[in-house]
Amino acid sequence: MSLLVVGSVAFDSIRTPHGEAEGILGGSASFFSVAASWFGPVKVVAVVGEDFGEEHLEVFRLRSIETTGIERARGKTFRWKGEYVGDMNDARTLDLQLNVFQNFSPKVPESDASTEYVFLGNIDPKLQLHVRRQVPHARMVACDSMNYWIEGSLDDLKKTLREVHALVINEGEARMLSGHQNLRKAAKEIQKMGPEIVVIKRGEHGVSLFTNGSIFSAPAFMLEEFKDPTGAGDSFAGGFMGHLARTGDFSEANLRRAVVYGSVMASFAVEEFGLKRLLRLTPQEIEGRVREFAQLTRFDV
Amino acid sequence: MSLLVVGSVAFDSIRTPHGEAEGILGGSASFFSVAASWFGPVKVVAVVGEDFGEEHLEVFRLRSIETTGIERARGKTFRWKGEYVGDMNDARTLDLQLNVFQNFSPKVPESDASTEYVFLGNIDPKLQLHVRRQVPHARMVACDSMNYWIEGSLDDLKKTLREVHALVINEGEARMLSGHQNLRKAAKEIQKMGPEIVVIKRGEHGVSLFTNGSIFSAPAFMLEEFKDPTGAGDSFAGGFMGHLARTGDFSEANLRRAVVYGSVMASFAVEEFGLKRLLRLTPQEIEGRVREFAQLTRFDV
Repeated sequence: MSLLVVGSVAFDSIRTPHGEAEGILGGSASFFSVAASWFGPVKVVAVVGEDFGEEHLEVFRLRSIETTGIERARGKTFRWKGEYVGDMNDARTLDLQLNVFQNFSPKVPESDASTEYVFLGNIDPKLQLHVRRQVPHARMVACDSMNYWIEGSLDDLKKTLREVHALVINEGEARMLSGHQNLRKAAKEIQKMGPEIVVIKRGEHGVSLFTNGSIFSAPAFMLEEFKDPTGAGDSFAGGFMGHLARTGDFSEANLRRAVVYGSVMASFAVEEFGLKRLLRLTPQEIEGRVREFAQLTRFDV
Repeated sequence: MSLLVVGSVAFDSIRTPHGEAEGILGGSASFFSVAASWFGPVKVVAVVGEDFGEEHLEVFRLRSIETTGIERARGKTFRWKGEYVGDMNDARTLDLQLNVFQNFSPKVPESDASTEYVFLGNIDPKLQLHVRRQVPHARMVACDSMNYWIEGSLDDLKKTLREVHALVINEGEARMLSGHQNLRKAAKEIQKMGPEIVVIKRGEHGVSLFTNGSIFSAPAFMLEEFKDPTGAGDSFAGGFMGHLARTGDFSEANLRRAVVYGSVMASFAVEEFGLKRLLRLTPQEIEGRVREFAQLTRFDV
């Protein structure tokens, strides 16, 4: 029943119209694991540098996240500096230092080879495939990707896609990967590449879930305060996979519920900079927002 | 119970990635009235030129739309030429000839002064106010507007807004009008200007309805074939107001239903160029798509 994520652990420096933060803990594996930790046990496979202190590992441990898969390498931790302007829909990368991530070869601890739920965060598709093959018994493997890999490593990405159950991807990237502007056609094309389940993230416009023959569209939760979109997509994936791992149910109805839990986790993530809001959640807050989410979308005909 | 619309009747020339059409019947009042005609009686107040033939009036009459408010003036009918590229989210205007619209002073026929439901299409806010004052007993007046008036005639627009119940407006224009990027804040600010009901249209991303203290978000119906976005917003408004006029019920639940009917009418409008698809609908098709719409958004928690 446990859930494993491979991805980045990073120090982020972020500027948005609502403030800024310098060198705070971030990265896809961090957002995913903290979000998913509210649903059950999570293990992280990642790499950090010598500048990654005990106080940072403590953040994971406080959420009972298994960190034995976090390898420490010589050098500095991955760093990203970015800025959001206007409606904050797109990040502008100001600086990116791969550092220890450059030579990262993710290893799934032997004791975790039987993990059933796996999320391959947005890293080199070669590495995603490498990890995927270390968890041969997984019942549900989802992955993320981005324009950088679609443009530069399409063949590798396609190999990875053949071996995953779900792709969780941004709208623009779904269009780029499939060659279709129309999202229904884009999803169909991506399904032919391997993943039966395609989740298209549309930022402040919500999420659409494409499964065999069925489509579900959920709006984004409408926040009045929204400070920093960093990590929203990975927090979504954390809620989505967390709910699937907790229930073990891949029915259409439960996949829809997983999308709602994902959306709710993303909505919390963006309320504050970095992991702050996700770290001080309560299960009651999560369930409360799921009910508000239902209120936001409910109608009778 | 009847519904009146003031707006443009035009000849449109349109190019999209899926084809083109030359000099076809369009304009906000045309799309609105044809969409609304599936819900009950509609009357149009507009102006056309000498080039507007009986065959064009016949289009309205076939849908039992009252055309006595369509004034014929010397000169040519309003013409718009536009193109959509890529994801077709924004129209590029290639040519615009106001023609008879330039000196239009809309007159509500005396027999219609007691109309209860009114839609003020996207025209000069001075004219919208002029019409609004000719229907003093209206129970529900909704209006549309656009960046052109927000930038150039803000004072007039604010005067109009003080006397309407609902504003139906695009996302970008809601932000421009309110000065808020955040849509919840934008809607609150607009509500302070007059309309209790704010409907924000987000194109392929759906619609959000803001009423006193409540928010409803509906995704757009997800089409595989989508040829021409022209008139989608006015078709939405036609379904929205058509359902309200047919039911006379302004409860939150029924406003939500009206948003769904509006979304369904918009989804039909964009399937073909111009009014084509809206003209050959059946009530069964409308109800069928409303049920599909429910399927698209339904989840249980």
